[in-house]
Amino acid sequence: MSEATETIGVDLGGTKVQVGVLAGVETLWESREGSREQSQDELVELIVREIEAARAARPDAAAVGLGIPATINQARGEAIAAVNLPLVELPIRDLISERVGLPVFLDNDGNVAGLAEHLYGAARGKPTMVMLTIGTGIGGGLILGGQIFRGATGAGAELGHVVIQADGPPCQGNCPNHGCVESLASGTALGREGRAAAESAPDSAIGKLLAEGVDIDGLVVTEAALAGDETAIGVFDLIGSRLGVACASFANIFEPEAIVIGGGVIAAGDLLLDPCRKEVRERALTPMNETPILEATLGNDAGMIGAAALARTELEKQS
Amino acid sequence: MSEATETIGVDLGGTKVQVGVLAGVETLWESREGSREQSQDELVELIVREIEAARAARPDAAAVGLGIPATINQARGEAIAAVNLPLVELPIRDLISERVGLPVFLDNDGNVAGLAEHLYGAARGKPTMVMLTIGTGIGGGLILGGQIFRGATGAGAELGHVVIQADGPPCQGNCPNHGCVESLASGTALGREGRAAAESAPDSAIGKLLAEGVDIDGLVVTEAALAGDETAIGVFDLIGSRLGVACASFANIFEPEAIVIGGGVIAAGDLLLDPCRKEVRERALTPMNETPILEATLGNDAGMIGAAALARTELEKQS
Repeated sequence: MSEATETIGVDLGGTKVQVGVLAGVETLWESREGSREQSQDELVELIVREIEAARAARPDAAAVGLGIPATINQARGEAIAAVNLPLVELPIRDLISERVGLPVFLDNDGNVAGLAEHLYGAARGKPTMVMLTIGTGIGGGLILGGQIFRGATGAGAELGHVVIQADGPPCQGNCPNHGCVESLASGTALGREGRAAAESAPDSAIGKLLAEGVDIDGLVVTEAALAGDETAIGVFDLIGSRLGVACASFANIFEPEAIVIGGGVIAAGDLLLDPCRKEVRERALTPMNETPILEATLGNDAGMIGAAALARTELEKQS
Repeated sequence: MSEATETIGVDLGGTKVQVGVLAGVETLWESREGSREQSQDELVELIVREIEAARAARPDAAAVGLGIPATINQARGEAIAAVNLPLVELPIRDLISERVGLPVFLDNDGNVAGLAEHLYGAARGKPTMVMLTIGTGIGGGLILGGQIFRGATGAGAELGHVVIQADGPPCQGNCPNHGCVESLASGTALGREGRAAAESAPDSAIGKLLAEGVDIDGLVVTEAALAGDETAIGVFDLIGSRLGVACASFANIFEPEAIVIGGGVIAAGDLLLDPCRKEVRERALTPMNETPILEATLGNDAGMIGAAALARTELEKQS
């Protein structure tokens, strides 16, 4: 087994499924499909169809790694519950393995993104790292001592559901908590705060877009901020600071060599990360106040690359 | 090396230093001394004096384990900074080892308490556990996969400095953060909330004590609550709920097999833990909402027992 071994990486997100055949970090074949508002059965069919397309293109692929935004039971290969997808106690590992006739390895999407950034990305050579993927929700991944940390049965590392404001707003999807960092600093929260800012600043770029009938979501706020709109930049100050409160907690807990931030919202780059870094410097204990807060370097491909790497590294352990 | 090996455990707290010679969980000799308002040099002298007394009593003791409430650099054997003691960049491991002529192993007090509860106490047989020791401050310990997790250099597991309310009050000592669980649910916070409750309920047991000129601290509130004073019980509802917010975060992060609560404040038992358990059930994701929240069984001795166990297990690794 080597980095020349081809494996299939599947990254199932709240809005799309991305499938690739990879050798190490090199993508040999790739597909993307929308996954929004599909039922559990439709999601399984979609994943099977895309894996079959991948195998048709690259017949040597030896195994499948599957990263999903859900709590996992590793012993049963089960998706227990997902915040932003209709997955409930689904034995997805064996379901997919039986359909495609390949070994399937399952993990949380945040964990596989963390593995990818640890092996090939921003946290290369850093055996203790925290990964946050900020999209529809906030996924978490933990690499401790060079290994994925999953908790007792595989459901851990739900870093988006760490509280930063006990009396904060209700979280989203099936999370019963209040004031999670996901509820306050996800892409969903970015859109919500962006709409509020646009309403209260009608002369700003996002205010004018709102008046024109544009749906102000995270992407619109990001583009406006990158183009220099001070109101949109202010929204990133707010979201980045909230993210920094959670990162200060993670710094104090893990004393990591890096916290890596990925997912769609990282398109804003330092507009998001600088206010986050400021909170970590001001809030964390010595020496954790110096924890590097790094932008993920594998972009939206981290989940797919990490899922394929999971399949390869798990095959290696078995051989 | 076996559990018959005698080692010295030193538990340095915010108000006292406790030293014991132990074989496994069995205490063969023990001393306690106040440590309040001592300088760094005086603390070192105090520890050396107590270790020498321990050796005079039990000359076969093979090594010293030292648990201190500070961030640690393991490579340098250094106490970097302590929230409730005047320790700053002190190479305490080698200082003490040179003075007493024995190998010294150093760790955070929360880590050694966690080791003790994992080896001999409430979390026996549970390789993934979170320890919180609630006294003057809140210490944290992490046992992951049966081993102490210390972060990249040894400064991690500062679980008391996880934020539960971003706009909360300033934390204590040298912690620059706001709204840490330590600032809101430590013994210090218990005393503060107890005084406030006594002022607003003059007919309650603690209100009457306040009127009599009694200094309302955590101990007074605990005794009143255990005697049935509803106002004092209400203070534990508040403190326990806040603790539960942090425990819900720890449950989501670690998916531990248990969260063990020790330290002086646990004298209130379920008056503290029941509101904490309620928050975890209501806030954590499935299946982490079922995480057992357990009372430490080694009491105030956990730090000393764990420090001695650290010395023994580290000697074993070297032999």
